[in-house]
Amino acid sequence: MPTKLVTWEEIVEWSRGLANIIKRSGWRPDVIVAIARGGYIPARLLCDFLGVENLLSIQSQHWTEAAKAEEKAVLRFPYIVDMSGKKVLLVDDIVDTGDTVMLAEKFIRENWNPSEVKIAVLQWISPIAKIKPDFYFIEVKEWVWFQYPWTRLEDVTSFIKRMIYEEAKSGKSVWTFEDIVNSFREWYGIDVDRYFYEDALENLIERGFLTRKNGLYIYRGET
Amino acid sequence: MPTKLVTWEEIVEWSRGLANIIKRSGWRPDVIVAIARGGYIPARLLCDFLGVENLLSIQSQHWTEAAKAEEKAVLRFPYIVDMSGKKVLLVDDIVDTGDTVMLAEKFIRENWNPSEVKIAVLQWISPIAKIKPDFYFIEVKEWVWFQYPWTRLEDVTSFIKRMIYEEAKSGKSVWTFEDIVNSFREWYGIDVDRYFYEDALENLIERGFLTRKNGLYIYRGET
Repeated sequence: MPTKLVTWEEIVEWSRGLANIIKRSGWRPDVIVAIARGGYIPARLLCDFLGVENLLSIQSQHWTEAAKAEEKAVLRFPYIVDMSGKKVLLVDDIVDTGDTVMLAEKFIRENWNPSEVKIAVLQWISPIAKIKPDFYFIEVKEWVWFQYPWTRLEDVTSFIKRMIYEEAKSGKSVWTFEDIVNSFREWYGIDVDRYFYEDALENLIERGFLTRKNGLYIYRGET
Repeated sequence: MPTKLVTWEEIVEWSRGLANIIKRSGWRPDVIVAIARGGYIPARLLCDFLGVENLLSIQSQHWTEAAKAEEKAVLRFPYIVDMSGKKVLLVDDIVDTGDTVMLAEKFIRENWNPSEVKIAVLQWISPIAKIKPDFYFIEVKEWVWFQYPWTRLEDVTSFIKRMIYEEAKSGKSVWTFEDIVNSFREWYGIDVDRYFYEDALENLIERGFLTRKNGLYIYRGET
């Protein structure tokens, strides 16, 4: 799986580019609604670049039903506000299937009474998305894992976990810190600040996936 | 007024430091509530560093009543959700007077029924704040304008506006682009990427504060 580490500078550049596309359309939102959690940072930057003061959020996420091995989008903490006469821009980081953004849009249209709702995202994975967002900065045609800077610890944690799980199949279950860092770079073709490796390993110890003994990290044989 | 340009790297470092302070306290939130707009980016980073999935926001802002020349905090789009049994962490970038965060906290306690509410901020201006936040990363004792990266365009726009307004008192009303950039650096002791100057000048033209003629920027004599 090719992985692309997205920098903060790219996030600013992409958000500004997205803002300019929206400006050139002639359409100006009164309110920005971020989809939690992915849309928070693009939404805040769009407020700056578009000069929008009203900012709120709604949480729409994929939810894997373990029993059914089936994903569906759900809203957490849905709530009602009055957006009568207001043009709403719904913002997320990426449209992959489009399920989460479609659910949020439907909820807002049916419950908040806005005059308009449009969708803006940094990236649109056009081959798999069920919808085309009104505004997007990058159309992604081949699958790449975009590693955004606000999910760095979560992603590094799950990346290390998968690597250790897979390597255990070949019999490797004891790792030094430097082993882990070097293998991570080889596996994923990216590198992150050292403290992300440290914090990710703390997470994996806390979750019972690893133990640490005499400075070595030992896989506990669980998933 | 001394100005400190805060980088994205510092924001990540401060947010991680704040997360570590919260972890060491032994208290773990179930839900993070960002105060819009300032708390959005610290809140999203705290979700990553603390492993918190539930994220929502509430907008609490200073509002200057023009007639009274008096500031008060107001909530925009207050809404009701059920946080029964949940520990809420309310997150903002900075506590200056503390009014906005106090208003948001009061509203949440009275309307969302949480089991606990604690407050975390990147910076606490201790000499003027009416409250001490439960968690903070930096205590600021002398007044410095912290220029956060998510308000860069808004701040550069108002900084240029003030500079041009003040310089007009000494008779200067026609500026080249390079004039503006050089004076900005002298006035504020900071420098930003070139496109922020360009976008800020577009903002000031759009607002009728400047006109552009033959590549020169001309102050229109208004505030």
